[in-house]
Amino acid sequence: MAATVGTGSPCGACKFLRRKCTPDCIFAPYFCSEQGPARFASIHKVFGASNVSKLLHHVAVADRCETVVSIAYEAQARIKDPVLGCVAHIFALQQQVQTMRVIKS
Amino acid sequence: MAATVGTGSPCGACKFLRRKCTPDCIFAPYFCSEQGPARFASIHKVFGASNVSKLLHHVAVADRCETVVSIAYEAQARIKDPVLGCVAHIFALQQQVQTMRVIKS
Repeated sequence: MAATVGTGSPCGACKFLRRKCTPDCIFAPYFCSEQGPARFASIHKVFGASNVSKLLHHVAVADRCETVVSIAYEAQARIKDPVLGCVAHIFALQQQVQTMRVIKS
Repeated sequence: MAATVGTGSPCGACKFLRRKCTPDCIFAPYFCSEQGPARFASIHKVFGASNVSKLLHHVAVADRCETVVSIAYEAQARIKDPVLGCVAHIFALQQQVQTMRVIKS
């Protein structure tokens, strides 16, 4: 997640959104100019740029990277499985815990 | 999740969005007029009405109820924990599996 602030090239999110990347761009520290657009595309499709921007403004700066990682994970899971998204992973893990409990008892 | 199609009152989503609820409203079967607006509020805040509408149109009618349930779950988890959302549940379950493995071995 290379920051592109001040390098002249837009961040991956602004590149995807085809807009000017300003020095105070909330997305720039988390979406590099190269791999960033593809990463941002799934987030934009599932959550929308505006909602994610609001969310990032709402959390502390120190928590934003982890927020982007979890949002990207959820977005990719929802694109892969439109019905359950990452809830499918929760179901699978709950099933695994249940199975381990049965084997143990 | 009582359907409100044809009852005259708008569905919970349209009530929240303050718009006319049409007979072909994609949200109506899943958001009743009473509890629906509160349920839709969190979904709207996290994903946006337009994105969820697109998602529901993209999945089979038979899968839409489960899609709404998983989306509502993700939205509520994200509002409760803006940094990790429901990924916090995945981490907790992974930790539980790991602990059970250690105890077992």
